[in-house]
This record gives sequence, structure tokens and C-alpha cells, in this order.
Amino acid sequence: MEKKRIVLALGGNALQKNGEATAEAQKKIAIEVGETIAELANQYEIIVAHGNGPQVGNILIHEESASSEKAPAMPLETAVAMSQGQIGYWLTQAINNAFAKKRKNKKVVTIVSQVVVSRDDSAFKNPTKPIGQFYSEKEAKALAREKGWTVKEDAGRGWRRVVASPKPIDIVEKKSIKDLVEDGAIVIAAGGGGIPVIRTKILKRLKGIDAVIDKDYAAEKLAELVGADIFISVTAVPNVYINYGTPDQKALEHVSAGEINRLKKYGYFKAGSMLPKVEAAAKFAEKPGRIGIITDIESLKPALAGKAGTIITRAS
Amino acid sequence: MEKKRIVLALGGNALQKNGEATAEAQKKIAIEVGETIAELANQYEIIVAHGNGPQVGNILIHEESASSEKAPAMPLETAVAMSQGQIGYWLTQAINNAFAKKRKNKKVVTIVSQVVVSRDDSAFKNPTKPIGQFYSEKEAKALAREKGWTVKEDAGRGWRRVVASPKPIDIVEKKSIKDLVEDGAIVIAAGGGGIPVIRTKILKRLKGIDAVIDKDYAAEKLAELVGADIFISVTAVPNVYINYGTPDQKALEHVSAGEINRLKKYGYFKAGSMLPKVEAAAKFAEKPGRIGIITDIESLKPALAGKAGTIITRAS
Repeated sequence: MEKKRIVLALGGNALQKNGEATAEAQKKIAIEVGETIAELANQYEIIVAHGNGPQVGNILIHEESASSEKAPAMPLETAVAMSQGQIGYWLTQAINNAFAKKRKNKKVVTIVSQVVVSRDDSAFKNPTKPIGQFYSEKEAKALAREKGWTVKEDAGRGWRRVVASPKPIDIVEKKSIKDLVEDGAIVIAAGGGGIPVIRTKILKRLKGIDAVIDKDYAAEKLAELVGADIFISVTAVPNVYINYGTPDQKALEHVSAGEINRLKKYGYFKAGSMLPKVEAAAKFAEKPGRIGIITDIESLKPALAGKAGTIITRAS
Repeated sequence: MEKKRIVLALGGNALQKNGEATAEAQKKIAIEVGETIAELANQYEIIVAHGNGPQVGNILIHEESASSEKAPAMPLETAVAMSQGQIGYWLTQAINNAFAKKRKNKKVVTIVSQVVVSRDDSAFKNPTKPIGQFYSEKEAKALAREKGWTVKEDAGRGWRRVVASPKPIDIVEKKSIKDLVEDGAIVIAAGGGGIPVIRTKILKRLKGIDAVIDKDYAAEKLAELVGADIFISVTAVPNVYINYGTPDQKALEHVSAGEINRLKKYGYFKAGSMLPKVEAAAKFAEKPGRIGIITDIESLKPALAGKAGTIITRAS
């Protein structure tokens, strides 16, 4: 029987569970992820996409606060590429070692990934994603003038740069990612939602742009482009809930994409939290035969057997 | 006719020709490299390895000088992974755009690469490669105690950390790199000499280790492992010279690996400069049918036609 193809979207926060941001602490958590993936590899073809929020945040803090003429700070788009190398390396090695433990030798590979967005995306008119370090109002406004940044006051904690979060429309490396999976590799791709690039109108040249692409949307786009059967957004909780933390709390189990869309309209899912995950999973599941899952790493195996997690299909 | 397979080793300094270290300046130089590679792609299968000296140096300076408990500095091995994402992205995009200019659509892909070294490599007994920022003697010695670093005074400029430069013995991602090239992709791999890892004795687990692998040795190892026909070390000069800068200066053109080894014995090649390049190219050329070339980016095409560069074969 042919293996089903899965795209997993892993939170960048997942590697910093206890708020510990050292390489050592993050690698330790990657080991758990690696072992789960190595277990699933018997039954599935696997592509791992991941977030990079806290990691790229720290890279930018380092780059910007220690910037000098001789060692100038890298821009956001290049910092995303750096975070793909960083997290991709940790995940690759963790999965390599999980296979080594099983005395198996399977290819695992991280692809530096460019994700195409549209310059006309309305997100560029209203940048909302705070990134990098905090500044005083004066510093922030000077940087805005100097570098063309948009800056905003962030919940009483100081001023920060904000960037747009446009929707992914294509993934430059999609064919290579598909080739590798078909050649039997576990592939790590579209890290941090991908390096944001636009295509110029003339000659379709690629050009990096400072923005942040949501990792669930990018992973869902990747799942479509590589012909995946299952899209899984891995989060901190086993299910999507409605009325979370109230007496009316209810875990969603088997639901249709239509039901998700109705609940969304009623405002059940929070932006910046569950909303992108349910949107991505429901969008993926709208096509017959495809499944969208939202669950935590512990429930991944039972969820794939239909016994845990929030499982979204076209018709439930 | 089957295409010949080339591994190109590109200097990390090549992207900072004028000492300009901004992302913008480095991307501009990458464009030239991209156009040369896109031209060669009609006739050759191409894998690009690259150095990362100045780039990883700046990453470490930023990471270390702006390190805090909340945003701790990444270690060298992870910084190498970050530089692979960074430079790999720039090169990938430059090659993508060179193909776009020719209205061609060819796969280009950067692989985050782990390069295996031996814990028993004698280089670990005598670390020699200075990396990262300068410290005062007091700071340096405190860091040595705290982090187990080896520190040395660097030519009157202050104190720096020094790390080992062990020899590459394997490349973890070799099969995926080969698969991709055979599927028609241009592949960027083993960046910065690769992320240095050792294999533990038990279970052959991979473990990152703070070291710096010479990019020419790593690229040569990659060329062997993927069955390349030609290894090219791309440098700042069109040829290897003996007695460079003296009245007896002589450009080497067609030479045998044996001649290179003899000249090496007489001390004609400088360590840290031409030595690793000629050693790598001669080692590659020792096997019949394989060619090692050392030249600059401008002479790449004529060198491949046998009309420029230093061309090393088993018998000249």
C-alpha cells in the first residue's frame, strides 16, 4: 500500500516549552519531536514545516543590538533564512538520531525555502506583526525615518517594529521538496513560514521582502503543492476547543470544514492563536479525500488513527 | 551525452569583495556568481559548496556581544547552520534569478549540511582557528574557564577564541544531495565546510561540536561522495602561482597531482591560503579520470574548456 503523505506544522514555541532559549534546551525538546517523527515514518511520508517566532526574534535582537559598520545587522528576510538553518539543523539531527536509535538509516534533509507573497497583499497596507527588540519612542521613530520601518507601541512594554503578515501564494522549492519525499526522505521545509519573497512583474525575478508569513498558512500551501493527504497543525493542546476555560468548554473531535467555518464566523477562534490553525486545516480539508488535523505532539499517533485530536474533513 | 558533474567550492570572502558586509552588498555579488552558474548549467550538473568565514564571524559577534539570559548566544555549530541558511538563501535566489533572466525554470536548492569529523582528529589537541570577537586578556581567560574555550592572543589585536579545524570524513546528507542533482537540481551544500558533527561510538548518534571545517576539504569530500567528475576551488586569482609576487612568478597551468605534491613538499603553498585549495584539488585528481581546477569566477568557463586556470590531473 502506498504511504500517505503528511505535512506537519510545528510551532516555533514548541521548542521553547519552558521558555528556555539556549541551543541545548531547544535541542533537547527537538529529540522528542524527532522520536515521534521516526515512529510515524514507517507508515507515512513526512514533511515538517515549523514556526520560528522566538528564534528569529532572538536573532534579530542580537543582529540589531550589536550591529556595527563592520558587522551590520542582517534584515528580517535573511534572519528568517538563518533561523531555517538553525532550527532545520536541530530537527534534522534529532530525526537522524531517532532513526539511529532504531538502527535505521533514513534520509532526513532541511531545504532552505522561499515562500512567494504578493506585493499587492492588503497586509502590506497595515503591518501588524511586532518583531525584534523593544525601543524607546524616540529611538523607534528615528529608526522608522532611517529604515522606512513601521513602528508601534506594544502593550505598554515599549516600541517595536511591526511588519506585514501576507498570505503565501507559492513555494519556490516545491518541486525539490516533492522529489526528495518521493525519493524516501523526511523533509524539513518552509521553516518560519518561509523566507518571504515577491516576484517582480518583469522577468518574475525573486526579491526578499521584510514580512512574516504565518507558518500554518505556509505549511498548508506546501501540503497542497506537494499533493499531501493529511495536514497537521501541531499545537500545545490535544484538541481545538470552543468556550475554552469556561464551564461550556467543548473539545472538537470529528468536524466538517463547513462547521469550522461557521464557528469561525461566530468568533469562536482567536486571531494569533487558534484561528490560523483552524483556517489552514479547514482550507486543506475542503477538498474531498484530504484531512486536516489539529492536535499536540503526544496525540499525533492516535489522531492519525482517528482516535484523538480535532479531525477536519469535507463532510464529518 | 551525459552531463559532467561539478562541485564548486566558493570562498566566503568572495561575497565580501570590497569588505562590504551588508546583506545588500553580498547579494549583489551573489548575482554575478548566479549568472555564471546558470550559464554552466546547460553543460554541467552543478553542486555549489561555499565558505562562511566573514559571515559566521559576524553572526558570532552579534550572538556573543548581545547575549542575555532571555536571548542566549547560539554556539558555533548552530551559528554555522545559521550561516548556511543565510548564504544558501542568497545564492539560491541569485541562481533562480539568473535562470529567470534566461526564461528558464530550473530547480535550485540549498541543503542544510552536517559534516562528520572524528573526535580523535589531532586538530582537537591543538585548536588554531580564531573565531568571533576580540576580548581583553581578562575577559578571554574568564570565558575560557566558564565555557571551556581555548583562547589565544591574536597578532597584537587582542584575545580570541580558537577552535579546531578537523578533517571531514563524511557528509550526512550526501544521498539527498546526489538524488537532487540527479533529479536536475543545482544544489548548494556543505556551506561553511558543513556543520561539524561527530558520531558517538554507541548507536552512531550525531552530535554537534564547536569546530571549523575547511570548505575546500569539505567540498572535495562532497565531490568524492556524490561521484563528481570535476572539483573546482574558486578563488580570487585565475591560477595557482609559485613564487607569487617575485620576478620568478610562474602560473601553474596543466599539472599533475604528483607535481603539486612535490611543490607542496618544497613549501611553495601557504597554509591558510593556497595550501588547502591545492591539497583538495590534487587529492581529488589523484583518481584517474577526475579533474581538479583552481581558478577565479571569471576564468571558470575557459578553465572548464582547458584554456585557463590551474588544471590538475593524475598525469599532466
